[in-house]
Formats: sequence, structure tokens, C-alpha cells
Amino acid sequence: MALSTEFTELFGIRHPIVLAPMGGSAGGALAAAVSSNGGLGMLGAAFGDREWLDREARIVASRTDQPWGVGFLTWGIDAAAVERALEYGPCAVMLSFGDPSPYVELVREAGAVLIIQVTDLEEARQAVDLGADVIVAQGTEAGGHGARRGRSTLPFVPVVVDLAASVPVPVLAAGGIADGRGLAAALALGAAGAMIGSRFQATTEALVDPAITKAIIEGRGEDTERSSVLDIARGSRWPSKYPARTLGHLYLDRWRGREAELVEDPQVREDYQADVARGVIPPLPVWAGEAVDLITDLPSAADLVTTLANQAEIALARAGRR
Amino acid sequence: MALSTEFTELFGIRHPIVLAPMGGSAGGALAAAVSSNGGLGMLGAAFGDREWLDREARIVASRTDQPWGVGFLTWGIDAAAVERALEYGPCAVMLSFGDPSPYVELVREAGAVLIIQVTDLEEARQAVDLGADVIVAQGTEAGGHGARRGRSTLPFVPVVVDLAASVPVPVLAAGGIADGRGLAAALALGAAGAMIGSRFQATTEALVDPAITKAIIEGRGEDTERSSVLDIARGSRWPSKYPARTLGHLYLDRWRGREAELVEDPQVREDYQADVARGVIPPLPVWAGEAVDLITDLPSAADLVTTLANQAEIALARAGRR
Ligand SMILES: Cc1cc2nc3c(=O)[nH]c(=O)nc-3n(C[C@H](O)[C@H](O)[C@H](O)COP(=O)(O)O)c2cc1C
Ligand SMILES: Cc1cc2nc3c(=O)[nH]c(=O)nc-3n(C[C@H](O)[C@H](O)[C@H](O)COP(=O)(O)O)c2cc1C
Repeated sequence: MALSTEFTELFGIRHPIVLAPMGGSAGGALAAAVSSNGGLGMLGAAFGDREWLDREARIVASRTDQPWGVGFLTWGIDAAAVERALEYGPCAVMLSFGDPSPYVELVREAGAVLIIQVTDLEEARQAVDLGADVIVAQGTEAGGHGARRGRSTLPFVPVVVDLAASVPVPVLAAGGIADGRGLAAALALGAAGAMIGSRFQATTEALVDPAITKAIIEGRGEDTERSSVLDIARGSRWPSKYPARTLGHLYLDRWRGREAELVEDPQVREDYQADVARGVIPPLPVWAGEAVDLITDLPSAADLVTTLANQAEIALARAGRR
Repeated sequence: MALSTEFTELFGIRHPIVLAPMGGSAGGALAAAVSSNGGLGMLGAAFGDREWLDREARIVASRTDQPWGVGFLTWGIDAAAVERALEYGPCAVMLSFGDPSPYVELVREAGAVLIIQVTDLEEARQAVDLGADVIVAQGTEAGGHGARRGRSTLPFVPVVVDLAASVPVPVLAAGGIADGRGLAAALALGAAGAMIGSRFQATTEALVDPAITKAIIEGRGEDTERSSVLDIARGSRWPSKYPARTLGHLYLDRWRGREAELVEDPQVREDYQADVARGVIPPLPVWAGEAVDLITDLPSAADLVTTLANQAEIALARAGRR
């Protein structure tokens, strides 16, 4: 028996499993693999780089006839990026990290489902007020960026579910989910599905450097850490409200707790680039969530979706039924 | 249909719900109410204060014929405290925060169930090696103390469950669980039950000052924060490995991020006591977890146990079954 929720009904898909639109690494092949196997694949369009979007949107559209979507980093885009994406006919557009209001009408007029990812209660209230069709409640154990004063997934999701029930809007859980037990827990909390990032980084279809795949497979949850140090050091414009969870890094050890000083030191950004050029540090931080311990293999995304759904059904059937 | 797990079978009890042994506030009346209504009540004996233990153990033993237990702060006790508690015939002894090995044999010889609460993977491995009968995996969203570099409950519990499966030992989830959805999620993650603290603080049987009850009912998850500041300021001997999650506090705002400086400043401890005496700050910090949003009423613990179990059954029955 399949897992069915308001979310699977909304899209007419088989599994309440959503690929997180991981900037750069959730490309067309990965999104298509997830969608073709019953989940919802999302392109990680990040800042809406046109070349990337054109290429990857063509790939996903050509490889699947199932629903797929595209996700943006709201603080770093303009309307043109959203319009461009909508031309490829995504079923859903997701906006994360920043004020989504300038883009709500665009998405709605195109007839796409509007998904808003929220990282604290204030953002959740705004998403309800803006009329989001789906809200993703992201906990602090998530890989990549999230609110500095956010909340863990387990206590955060039910609060957002209660808030969204007044409309009602389906809520997805994000952060710390890397196997079927996590998906089952999300559903038990009242979520209509799970949005999964880190776990999909270690799949054969992800656009990820093999060194990163290896680091994720070998990494442990204790090794992950949330910080703004790496964004500052690499000269990224990420707002300080959103630190990122990554695996350990030389610059983290060097600058932990001294962010204010780091901001004032332009030399460090030059050193960082020089260290990248000399191979002392990798070109990009390894964004990964606390569930990284549960990631120990490199399946295809297609197989992974099926495995997650099966495991979740088993977990729910067994829970409290000894 | 009741929720049954390895844990409910081990104790022959009705619900996989455990009252956290909250130091001072989980007294005999609260523990007895939980045990009499099908959960497992635990006395919060903390450092093993003899007068407190004698009084509260007599209360619980006189009010219930169901299994109950007692919990200690391992780093702050000696063998005499454990021996004294065992004289009252608890079914279980729980050891948290510190090296449990000196007390394992004592508990075992008395025929009590040995429960060890763990806050990171290293502690979890030690608990397995020591032959714990039950392991409590505590996530960082928990109220009160926990490991500085701990993990959130949702990703931490399945990792401990996998580790414990080699024995096998049942695992309880702790941290961020305040309603039946959280309990259901814990079971879906593979836990055999949930240990619940903050939620039981706001019950009529808790040994809690009404001002604290009020603060918990009104508090929001964003207002909680993990820090060692309050322990240092009040002159507590808590090891720095274990900061505590509390609601906001004047001294947190004043000293946040300056723990090292605070340790070196004896004047602050005098100021703190003076501020308590003058009523500027409350006698004790309000220890509370991130699930505090879900705590909005003041039920009896007896009713609460039944409600939690019913809600969890409903949550599991509905999960993925639209
Ligand atoms: C490598 C990586 C890149 C990410 N990039 C984005 C992004 O561009 N846009 C976005 O909305 N979320 C992004 N996220 C966050 C995800 O949407 C999601 O909240 C998170 O992955 C869930 O936690 P998990 O990694 O534990 O599954 C990213 C996450 C990772 C791990
Ligand atoms: C007020 C309070 C006091 C606590 N005291 C103790 C204690 O003395 N010994 C102990 O093992 N755990 C103690 N804890 C932690 C609990 O065992 C448990 O891990 C925690 O309450 C679970 O998270 P929750 O508060 O979100 O339910 C305490 C928790 C609170 C809220």
C-alpha cells in the first residue's frame, strides 16, 4: 500500500518524497530520476544562472513526463530568473531564504504550485499569509543554509503544521531526513511529505564532485557544523541570518567564533582563493546535514526513492506494533 | 489498540511514555501519576540529596504499585546515593551526563533496569559496551542540559537505534517531544518509546514554582537557547561539556558568548545571588526545550499520559493514509 498524503494528491504522484533544489547539484538528470520514480524532482537553480537553468531544465523536461519543479534562493534573484524558469513549464516553483512576496504573483499566474521554504515561525506566518500552496518547514539539522535562530525539525514541524492547518496548506518536513524512518517520522508529525537534500547528494545522478560524494559517505554527524565563516571567507553574499551546515574545514577551525573580525579582513578572501588555487582547501565547502551518518552508499536516485518509500511504509507499520 | 514496544514489554506497562527524571521537579506525586496511568515515572534525584530522595521515594512508593524509577546526574553523585535509592525498590535507575561505569554493578546487583541517557555517539557506544538495558538518545532540542556538540533528535535517534540493534537494546527518544505526534515520530524512527521532560513541567503534579509553569506555557521555541552562562553565573559545577537549554534570561543577554571571561569573574556570582535576593532574576533558570510552543495548558500528568498515547495512535494511523 502506497503512502498517500495531501501532497501526493496535489501533484498526482506516488511518493511523498521531494528532492531539495540543491543549488548546482540538483540538476536535470537528478530531478528527472526522482520525478520518474514517483517523487518530485526539483532543479537547484539557486541564483537563476541562465546557462545552467537552460541546460538543466531542458534535460529534466526531456527525460520525464512527470511533474517537476525548480527552486531559487530568494534573496539573490530577480523576476527575470523566475520568468525564464516558468517558460520551461515546471509544475512547482520553490522560494527559499528571503522575502518571497515579489514573485508570488508571477508563479501563480503561470499556474505553477508555489512552495515556500521557511526556517522560523515568522517566515512560516508570512508563507501562510502569502498563500503558499505548500510550506516546507526546515529544521536546523539540515544541510546547507538555514536560519541562525531556527529550530530542530522534530519540534518545528508540528508547530508549522498547526499554523498551516488554518488554511489548510500541506507542510513538508526538511532537515535530517536520510532514510525511510525519517520520512515515516515526518508523516507521523503531521507533515504531508519530506524534502530531502544531503542524502540525494550521494546519488549517481547528482552534479557533485566525487571528492564531495566521498566526504559525505565518510562524514559523521558530529563533524557537521553551522557557521557563516566559510561564506564570509569565500566572499559569498549570503545574508548573515543564514549560516550554513557543512562538514569540517580548515577555515572553520581557524576563524570559528570570530566572524565579525573576519568580515573586516579583506586579506582572508584573497588567502582563501589562493588556498583553493593551490589545492589546500576544496573549491566549495561540503554542505551536509546531521543525518550524514545515515548516508553510507552511492545508489542511483531512482533506486533511492523506491527504497525510502518502502522503508517508510515498514517503519510506520512496525511503530508501536511489537 | 495500545502501542506496544520492547520497552513496554520490558516493564509490563501500557504506554511507551517515560517521565524524564527532572532534578527536583519530577517528585513522587508526578512520578506516581505517570506510573499509575501506564507510563514509567522517574524521580529526578539529581545529585542524590538524601532528604529529598527519602521524602519523594516514600511518596511514589506509597502512591503506585506500578513500576517507577529514579534518575541521577552521574557527574555529581557517589555510590551511597545510588545505594540509598535502591533501598526503596525502584524498577529502574537512570544515569545521565557523565561516566556511568562506577554504578553499573550496583544497579545490576539490585535487579533494577539500567537506563543510560546519551547525548552523542561516543556516549552511546559506551552505554552499549557497559550493557545498558535501555538507552535514551537525547537530542539538542531537549530542555535542560545536553552535550555541546550533540545532535538533533530526528537524525540522532536512528543512528543510536542502529548501534543498539547489535545487542539488541531498546532506545528511547528524548528532546523536543511534547505531544502525541512527537511520540509517534519517535516510534517511527525505531525508538521503543519517548522520554519527555519539559511537557511534564507544566502539569499539576510537578514540583514547580507557578512562575515557571507560567513561563513555560507562554514561552516560544525561539526563546529557548543553549548556553553555559547561567550555570557559570549561578556558581553551579556543571561540566562545560553540557550547556543547558533555558528560556531567555537577563544574564544570558549580558554574557552571551563571553563564557571564558565570566568564569574568571567571581564578582558576577555575587551579583547573581544579590539579583536573586532582590527579585531581579528568578531563583532558578527556566529549563525548557524547543517544543515549548506545543505546551499551552496545565493538565494533570495522569490525563496527559492518556492524551499523549491516544494522540500518538491517531498520528500513526493517519500517517501516509489519506
Ligand atoms: C548541498 C546543498 C545545497 C542546497 N542548496 C539549496 C538551494 O539552493 N535552495 C534551497 O532552497 N535549499 C537548498 N538546500 C537546503 C535544502 O532545501 C533542504 O532544506 C535541506 O537539504 C534539508 O536537509 P537535509 O540536507 O538534511 O536533507 C541545500 C542543501 C544542501 C545539502
Ligand atoms: C527542568 C528539567 C530538568 C532536567 N533535569 C534532569 C536531570 O536531573 N537528570 C536527567 O537525566 N535529565 C534531566 N533533564 C533532561 C531530561 O532527561 C530529558 O533529556 C529532556 O527533558 C528531554 O527533552 P524535552 O524537555 O524536550 O522533553 C531535565 C530536563 C528539564 C526540562
